[in-house]
Formats: sequence, structure tokens, C-alpha cells
Amino acid sequence: MAISRRELIQGAAVGGAGLVVGGVVGKVALGDGDGGGGGAGGSGLSGQAQKVATDRKLSADDVTRAVKTFVPPGQPGLDTHFLFSSGGHSGQILVMGVPSLKLLKVIGVFTPEPWQGYGYGADAGDIVLRQGTTSAGGAVSKERGMLTWGDTHHPALSETKGEYDGRWLYIQDRANGRIAMVDLRDFKTKQIIDVPNLESSHGGCFVTPNSEYVHISTKTPTLTDRSKAASALTNFKDLMRGYSTFMAINQGTGRMELDRSFQVELPPYTQDLADSGKLVSDGWVFINSYNSEMAVGGNAEGGVPIEVGASKNDFDMMHVINWKKAEEVIKAGKSRTINGIKVIPLDVAAAEGVLHLIPEPKSPHGVDVAPNGNYLCVGGKLDPHVTIYGFDKIKAAIDAKNYEKIDDFGVPVLKYDAVVAGRIEVGLGPLHTQYDEKGYGYISLFLDSAVAKFSLGEPYFKGDQAFKLVDKLKVNYNIGHLVTMEGDTVKPDGKYLVALNKWSIDRFPVVGTLKPQNFQLVDLTGEKMEILSDTPIGIGEPHYVQAIKAERIKAWEVYPPGTNPLTMEKDPNAIEDGKDRLEKRGNTLEAWMTVKRSQFKPDTLRANKGDKVILHLTNVEKTPDATHGFAIPRYNINVSLDPGECVTVEFTADAEGSFAMYCTEFCSALHLEMQGWFLVIA
Amino acid sequence: MAISRRELIQGAAVGGAGLVVGGVVGKVALGDGDGGGGGAGGSGLSGQAQKVATDRKLSADDVTRAVKTFVPPGQPGLDTHFLFSSGGHSGQILVMGVPSLKLLKVIGVFTPEPWQGYGYGADAGDIVLRQGTTSAGGAVSKERGMLTWGDTHHPALSETKGEYDGRWLYIQDRANGRIAMVDLRDFKTKQIIDVPNLESSHGGCFVTPNSEYVHISTKTPTLTDRSKAASALTNFKDLMRGYSTFMAINQGTGRMELDRSFQVELPPYTQDLADSGKLVSDGWVFINSYNSEMAVGGNAEGGVPIEVGASKNDFDMMHVINWKKAEEVIKAGKSRTINGIKVIPLDVAAAEGVLHLIPEPKSPHGVDVAPNGNYLCVGGKLDPHVTIYGFDKIKAAIDAKNYEKIDDFGVPVLKYDAVVAGRIEVGLGPLHTQYDEKGYGYISLFLDSAVAKFSLGEPYFKGDQAFKLVDKLKVNYNIGHLVTMEGDTVKPDGKYLVALNKWSIDRFPVVGTLKPQNFQLVDLTGEKMEILSDTPIGIGEPHYVQAIKAERIKAWEVYPPGTNPLTMEKDPNAIEDGKDRLEKRGNTLEAWMTVKRSQFKPDTLRANKGDKVILHLTNVEKTPDATHGFAIPRYNINVSLDPGECVTVEFTADAEGSFAMYCTEFCSALHLEMQGWFLVIA
Repeated sequence: MAISRRELIQGAAVGGAGLVVGGVVGKVALGDGDGGGGGAGGSGLSGQAQKVATDRKLSADDVTRAVKTFVPPGQPGLDTHFLFSSGGHSGQILVMGVPSLKLLKVIGVFTPEPWQGYGYGADAGDIVLRQGTTSAGGAVSKERGMLTWGDTHHPALSETKGEYDGRWLYIQDRANGRIAMVDLRDFKTKQIIDVPNLESSHGGCFVTPNSEYVHISTKTPTLTDRSKAASALTNFKDLMRGYSTFMAINQGTGRMELDRSFQVELPPYTQDLADSGKLVSDGWVFINSYNSEMAVGGNAEGGVPIEVGASKNDFDMMHVINWKKAEEVIKAGKSRTINGIKVIPLDVAAAEGVLHLIPEPKSPHGVDVAPNGNYLCVGGKLDPHVTIYGFDKIKAAIDAKNYEKIDDFGVPVLKYDAVVAGRIEVGLGPLHTQYDEKGYGYISLFLDSAVAKFSLGEPYFKGDQAFKLVDKLKVNYNIGHLVTMEGDTVKPDGKYLVALNKWSIDRFPVVGTLKPQNFQLVDLTGEKMEILSDTPIGIGEPHYVQAIKAERIKAWEVYPPGTNPLTMEKDPNAIEDGKDRLEKRGNTLEAWMTVKRSQFKPDTLRANKGDKVILHLTNVEKTPDATHGFAIPRYNINVSLDPGECVTVEFTADAEGSFAMYCTEFCSALHLEMQGWFLVIA
Repeated sequence: MAISRRELIQGAAVGGAGLVVGGVVGKVALGDGDGGGGGAGGSGLSGQAQKVATDRKLSADDVTRAVKTFVPPGQPGLDTHFLFSSGGHSGQILVMGVPSLKLLKVIGVFTPEPWQGYGYGADAGDIVLRQGTTSAGGAVSKERGMLTWGDTHHPALSETKGEYDGRWLYIQDRANGRIAMVDLRDFKTKQIIDVPNLESSHGGCFVTPNSEYVHISTKTPTLTDRSKAASALTNFKDLMRGYSTFMAINQGTGRMELDRSFQVELPPYTQDLADSGKLVSDGWVFINSYNSEMAVGGNAEGGVPIEVGASKNDFDMMHVINWKKAEEVIKAGKSRTINGIKVIPLDVAAAEGVLHLIPEPKSPHGVDVAPNGNYLCVGGKLDPHVTIYGFDKIKAAIDAKNYEKIDDFGVPVLKYDAVVAGRIEVGLGPLHTQYDEKGYGYISLFLDSAVAKFSLGEPYFKGDQAFKLVDKLKVNYNIGHLVTMEGDTVKPDGKYLVALNKWSIDRFPVVGTLKPQNFQLVDLTGEKMEILSDTPIGIGEPHYVQAIKAERIKAWEVYPPGTNPLTMEKDPNAIEDGKDRLEKRGNTLEAWMTVKRSQFKPDTLRANKGDKVILHLTNVEKTPDATHGFAIPRYNINVSLDPGECVTVEFTADAEGSFAMYCTEFCSALHLEMQGWFLVIA
């Protein structure tokens, strides 16, 4: 049975009307592989399943695990949550479904990514990546050029009243002290800011409970005068500073605005993780540190390595920052502007009560605020306890000026005993805590390769039920962070925990010398925690994850016609089908091109060598999944255009020849024929 | 219970002796989440599993699917096969396990990838990527600079006697006409060659049955004289040529050697896919084409779009190349050297019997050689048949000079009826065929969104059992290619098929406007084909996959001490633990650094602004998974060092300040303290 050539060519059979042809040509009845036998609701497990389990040597518990994690074909809703995971030094974000743990998307953030057309000629992505390399934050090497990678550590979902609202996602670059923003309508990166005065970053991102700010602080401190590098280490105390940064968020667009942002100057204690207060502690922010010893290394010149020097003291310092107070201080004009951002100097921060310190054992990693905002859990890292501070006690100590001492920088240090609510011995190498909806905390134990579950105090648990270790689960292996469903919010969802294991060792087949990380899915619904599955992470090194109920994400499937992803508004050069045109003006060739199944129009571009070429490309499709690509060989150009999307590509035609520009994203039966010619004439 | 600081600092608890600490500090017994209940061998499915299935509304068939595809924690061997998938315009390779379909690794090939330290300062990767941009293959834009992406389509595993041998993997870049080689000992890219005379590529990669050559041919033809771009389209027939390229493989190292390679010049028919003969057809290679019409477009200037012009004729041309004959022709000196490679000109190829043509309907996509080497299956794409040619018939027609005509380029066209063995109507949009071990072919139907299973002829099936459509399976949606286990070899393994669907539409949660592709795992062991699972592809657009038995891959877990991945030999600058040193010679700072848990030694580097800096880094660990990173903020440098690995980083210290160089890959309890200082003094 022939179908008309016109139908084939126009791809009418595929998506022309938004439908996919399901018809059959041929005499054999279509097998519908999509399940069906047995009916919905489960009429019991079949003998066939039992036979397969036996053949594959699966235990009964393994079968249960399989049934708990399987997302059947055609039932995507059974992935009830999403993980937004940092990609570590891949510089990207990984999006995965729970409980399937399948990888749904890699979002290009700090590293150019050509499949998404991010950083390969289209203005929308190129501008963002270029924004990310300026001299605002510090020196940039001319020879090495633009920054084309980042070390993403901490994703932060936007919040309203302390719950995730599914609008925006922020993430920071540990290596270069930068912060990016992703719009969860189209899952694309819209902004990278090279944060002034940050040469590195760790503490953040997280947002304040109504997304007023997204926080990012230094890790290794910044040299305040770059011309003094020679004495950076010998005069560390005077020349180096940390910065707690509050990047102001535009409540309409989610973009960060430097002019409304501010920093609080900190001692050079090498700040580490951070978290926002919520509810009773809304308005406050807490940051660990782990090198208040201010060790500088020198292992080949008579000094001790930093791993020794930074571990000397029994306590490091938690920074307690009152950002609402800081806002007042800024408003009162008591700040300096350094490299384009308002900074509250260290002495002012101390004098105005913006900054206090609290001793925390011993080179801690992780300060995590409980759902009610009153407890702060700190993993001791080199101390086998989780130390739990009470915000009510911290507030009381501040008000009563209950100080242990004043540190060398003039900052008051609160009395340790006055602010600790509880302390539980949990195991070796405690790092990072997340919470469930029942008043339990879950802390990762790097050295023990385990997760410890413990109870908080009142109002969750009272008397001898409070501050107790209640369960411990071995993981594989050497867990860094973990995440529970919505565990960072005022209303955790419990159900699952994902252990982000750093070493996979023997858990996966050997695929070369660089082994993947291991995400282990843990069931929290039983009396004891139980591992359900191992999942290799094929690209990147996740450090921290946020897990959100899938229903909160309301992403777009198509763009409003002519949208430029950078502005999220109609591009002035967007065109409708049939309105394509070409203009040659002196040494400039400008084209307004439509892109659809299965041609670019115009499909032939002729430039003279040296011409400036400006191409405005509009995907005029309206059907979900009707993405097209546009590549120009040899010119390192690849654009990805989703339905409705419009971008501009600008370059110089400095290489002569004939270049077959083509669609990179398989779009139709005649996808291969979706090609044109770009001629550069000498 | 305290453990000594020394133990913690040296990370003795983690991997010091290759072991992970499993001990417990604390009063709660460790829960071992790793299964165990029920025993191996399967004692039947539990009531608990049944309850879960009911709660999650899984049908009995879904439970069976879950049990068929689940790989339990700690049992990686249950992934019996690997997929090596192209990443499309991500420019990378994806490695996945079967049947779990989990992503084990993304291999950086044409696109820099910082997690692997590929293209971010380390010589091993930088050299490879730089190799990939030369002017040998064609013009390169100075303004746009180095090529930093590719469009990977066809991975090819090395073969011995027509079976996969697990040593090397090749893949081509459709966009720029390049080819890369990956070493399957460490799963890293070792070579990129910008193939002379190729401006694009599709036909390949595949290897000849003993890996003598890896093949790559043009897609859109090359302009033979770049100064004539102005008449490229009007004088297409004279100025444009295709090239079938045989890249010679060094049998010891797997590297490609241009001086032993050669090309056969082809008419500008826009060659498409290709495959190698095997067994009876060993020594021959077959390439589709789809624009023998030589349509050039011009949709905005009175011409017809290419999608119409290229679909005009009822037949395009399959190219049949006798490469053993070609070798003789080269040896006899009947070639020209063009841009550094020996080329057999078109007229010589025709005259010497190196090249013949066969009509193939209608704008075909896919020529796939059956396991016994005698059948070639061609998907009609715009013709709803699979056309099956017999190599015995082709050989006979060639020997008898049984021609239909001589084409405009002097190439003989064999008589269609003389070489067709069978023709089966399979459905709309047939593309690509793979095989099982029983004599069946499986062909993808893009427009029907289905897979059709058909029987071959003798010796597999005889009489009316031969050349029959036997089954058809709906897939979701719009399948491009497919792969069966070892389906490209002389001994396919059957068992599973993976459908590489281009459109996912509603199969996954909405994660923005760019939707993932869908890999559907299909069970071939039953009477009817059956879909087992859907898997989203989070990055890239796979085009073609090769599936290999996992046991054939013998990858390394560590390097021999001091190995540079580029040479796979000991680096002359590799050092042992304790042999670190620093040299300042005038304007050059050179350091030989050791890298191990948890310090770089030396950890302090002082350069004067403008100095040349040369760092030789050796990871002196011996334990699997003890990978370290090395990043220099602001200088766009990130290195990844696996156990035993040694690389060199060279750059100019042209930006002053203090830069906290640090380990990017979480390696130990004191990973954060694994940091040093790089001071650049003005």
C-alpha cells in the first residue's frame, strides 16, 4: 500500500497533526508490547515472573526490590519525584526520576554542551557562558581564555514559604566562585554570574525561604589585593578574607541582581557548607568552616600539609549570620562597595551583631537546618558525633552576650555549652544531614560507609527518645552526601533516601580506570532502612542533590512561538512560516530562516569570504518533541531549536568552500534530506 | 571511640590497604541492606512483593518485566551485555548495561569533558582534541577556532575473524568528516583524525572482519576545489565528489595510520550508511546513497527543496567496493595523493573493477550484511520494503558484466533483477537491519513506529519459509536504528534488541522543551517480541549502537605506575612517591608532583607573572577507584588522574593572584583539605 509522496515528504505521518501513525502495512497483526495482560491493579504475580526470578537467581528480596523500583513502559507518572543533582566537575546538572533512578536530562550549565546547542553559536547560550567569565570576581588568564567548565556542588530549588515551588534552580561553581540560574519552564541555564570577591565557593547554593536571596560563600579565602600574592601565605591573616554572599533574586524572573545583592566579610577560616534558617530561624544563615587554624601547607618546604594543619584544633567555627540585620546595615549605608558589590566589612559585621561564631567539632562538614528551623545538625567529619544546636539557645546566647571569647578578628564566639541541644555518637566520618517528616535526621558516615538515623529533640521527640541513634545502614561505598525527598524544606516527604556514594569499587562492571559514582536508593518506609538499588552515575561527580515531588514541576513542552530562551520573550527577529528572507548589505549577509520538517528556508546561503553572517533561526513547529538542529560543518556551530524557539547566530565567513548545513536532531522521515548549502566564495 | 588522627588523615580507613572500613561505632547493629533474605536461587515470590505490586498498580506482565530487567545491588554481573552507543551531537559515546539499561559511562570523544579531565589542560586529552582540528580535511574558521564538538553516529568495535574482540572502538563525526579511536583498556580517546577530503561523514564506522581497516565515507560530497565555491551547486557534477575511506589500523596499538590508508573516489550521490562484508563477502564493502538525483535545493530561489529533489527517482545507488582489489590498485601505483592520502580516482575505480553500483529503492537508509556474509538488507525508507541482495548473485553479475547501464561517471550499474534475492513488504519507513543467531533480520520502521522481524533465505530458511515477515512490534516512537546483541558480527547472540526511538513524546515526565530519546529494551526469546522497558537518554542523540557480551571487555582498573594515557606507556616525567621536586629556571617553573590521599606534593607553587609553568602530575595510588582531580581556579584547568596515571600540564602564569589548586574528585575523609596554593607574583 503506497502512501502519497507528499505525505511522506511533509512528514504528515509524524506529528503533522500532533499524532503518530500507528497504522500497519502488512499482514501480521501488530504485537503491542505495552503490557496489558493481567490488568491494572495487580492480580497477583505470575508463574512466569517466578520462573524468570529463578533463572536469574534473584532472591525473594531482590524481586521485591525490583517491584518497588520498576517504572513500567508508558507509565512515567510512577516516577513520583525528581532528583536535581550537581554534576561536580562535569559542570552540569543531572535530572533523574525516583524510584527508577533513570537519567532524564543533563542540563548544560558551566560547560558548553553541543547536543543542547549550548555554547556553540546560538546567542541564547553563548551570552550566558560569556557572562560567566569576567574579571569581576578575579583574574582571568588571557592565554587559557574563557572559563568552559565549572565544579557544580550545590543545587538549590526556589522556595515559597519554605516549600519547593518548582520555578527556578540555582547552582554554584566551586572552582571559580560563580553562580548560575536555571529556569524550570524549559530546563535551560539563563544566567551565570561571576561573583565579585569569590575565588572559589562552597557554602550554597541554598535559597532563603521565600527566595529573597540565594546564598553563596567562599571556600578557600580570597586575596584582597592581588598585587600582594607574594605574601598571601605569610600574611594570610591580614590579606585573606571570606565572603558570605546574598544574591538578590528578582521575584518575577528568578534572575539574580547584583545591585541589590550584598556580602558579609568573614575571617579566612575556609568556609564550607551552609544552610538557610527557616520558620523560627528565618532571617538567619549558618556556615561551617574547617580551617580556622588558617593552615597554609608547605609540605615540601618544612611546613605541614594542609590535611594535618587544618585538623589540629578540636573545634572550628560555625558562622551565624543575621541577614535581616545585614539588610538594615546596608540600608544605613555602613557598607563599602568592592568590585561592584556592597560589602559589610568584618569589623562592622561584628559590631552590628550581623556575625557571630560558634565552636563546632572538629573539621566539620555540613550544617543542616531541621524542618521546624530550630535544630542545626553538624557532622563532625573528624569527630564521630553529630552535634545538634538549638536555634532558640543560639538566639538566647546572642541576646545575653553569652560569649566564650572574642576571636582575633573581633567576632564574638558564643559559649559552646550554651547552644548545644544534643550530641549523638553516630560513627566515623559524619558529614551531612537530611530529614524526614517524622522528626528523624539521617546523616552520612563517610568512613563507616553508612547512613545513621537519629531522633531530634522536642517537639519531635521527648525525654530519652530524643537525640538517639535509632538505625544504621551500610552503603557501598564511602558516602558523601545524601538526600531525602524534599528533605531540605519545612515539609519533608520522607519515603526515599538516596545515598551519594563516592567510591563504587566493585558495584559495577569495570569500564576503565575512571569508575562511576554510585547512587543507592534507600527505602525509608519500613522499620529499618533498606537498600533498593544501585545506580551508576555515567558522567560527573554529584556532590549534593535536591529531591522534589514531580507534580511541582510544570515544565513547558513547547515555547510560545518565536521565544528566545535567554529572554523568555518573543525575539524581535522571530518570523512565521512563509516570512523567510535574505538580505545582502555590503559585507553583511543576514537571513531570517524558518526551520520545520523537513527543510530550512532559505536553504542556500552565499557569502563572500570575510562577510559578517547573521542568521535568525525560528523553529515554526508547534508539536511537542519537534526539535530541530542546525549545524554548519567546520565552523564549530551547532544549534538546537525546540518547537517555537528562535535564536541568532553571528559569525564571520572566514573560511571559503562549500559547507552542507544540516539538521542534527532526527526529526522526520526526510531528516537526512533536511540540509542546505552554505557557500563561502573567495 | 576515637581513631587516631594519623589514620584519619592518611585515609587509612579508606583504601589504604584496598579495603573499606566496615566497622561500626555505636550501639545499633548495622542493617545490611544488601538482600539475603530468601536465599539465592529464588525460593518463590513473596507476599511482600505481591503487596507492592498491588499498591503500585503493576500488572502481572509489568512484574515480569521488572524481574527480567532488574540488576540487584551488588550483582553487576547480571548486566550480561554492554551497549556502546553514539551520542549524536553531544559528540560523545554512551556505555550502558543490558538489561538494566543504566548508564555506566559517558566517554569524551569530540567534545571536551571536564569530569574526565579531557581537554582542560592535561596533555593526554588536549593533544588528541587538537589533532582533530587541522586543515587537512578542509577549511577551518580561524575566528570560530578549534572544533570542540562532533556529531557521533556510528561506533565500531574491533573484530577478529568477524567477532568482537573487545580491544578498540572507533566512531566518526558526521559534521566534520573525522574519526576517533577509543582504547577499551581505559575507555579513553586516543586519536582523532581529520580525514582528508571529507567534509562530512556517515558511512562508517565499521571495521573489516580482522580490523585491517576502519571505514568512513562522505555523506554530503566534498568540493574538490575550494576556490570554486561559487559554482559548487551549478557545477555539482564536476566539482563534487564522495570518498570511501579505508583507514588502516595498526594491529598492535589500534591506532589509525594515514600513510597506509586510502580512498576510493565516488560520484557525488550523497553516500549514506555502509557495512563491511564478512565470510563469503570478506574483502567487500557496501554503501547506500540517497541523492543520486544530485538535487541541490534552492527553495527560496525557484528550486525545489532537497527533501523533494532527492526523492524524485525510484532508485538510488548502492556502491559495491572491492577493497582487496583496491589494495592491489594502490600497490600498482594507480592512485593520486590528495591532501595527504592516496586516492583511487573515480575513472580508475570503475575501470579496475574496484567500484560497481546497484540500484536500491528508493532513498534507502541502511545496508546491513547478514551473519553469513551473503545477504545484504537495505531499508527502503520511502519504499515500504526491505530489499535483500545476495552477494553470490552480485559476484556473479560482476563476473558476467551483467550491467543495466553505465552511469554518467563511467561506473557500471548491475542489473537489479539479477542481484535481488528477496523483497519483503514490512511497513512504512524501513531503515536499518540487525540479526539474531537463528537467521532472522529485524528492521526498524520509522513511520510505522515499529520493528519488523523477517526470515532470510537459504541456508537459514527455505522455500516458503524464506523471506517472510513473521512478527511486528509497535515501539514508542519513531524508531531510527536498533541493535541486537552482537548483531553486527558473524555470531549474533540474540536475546535482546534495543530500539533507538527518536521521539519520546509522552513516555517520560516533562523535563523542559528538549525531550530525551527513548531506548526500548525488547525481549527476543519468546515467540513474539516484547517490550521490557523504556529508558530515557539524558544526554545526546544516539544514532547507532553496538552491543557486546560483557565478558569480552577486559578493561583496566588501574594503570601501570606512571602511565600516560596518550602513549599507554610510562611517561618519562612520571615519578614515585617521595621523588617530587620543583625547579625554577629563569622564566620557567617546572614541578614534578605526586598526587595521593590527601595532598599534592609540593603543595605550594610560586611563579612570577608571565612565567611558563610545567607541571608533571603522577597519581601514585595503586588502589582501584583512587582517582584524584587537580584544578587551578581561573585558569580553566582541570585534570583527572586515575591510579597510576601521569600527565603534564603546560601554561603561562599570565594572571596574578593566589589560586587555591585543589582535588576535584572526592577521594578521602580529608578530600577538602587536599588543596594547595598557586601564587602568581606580579
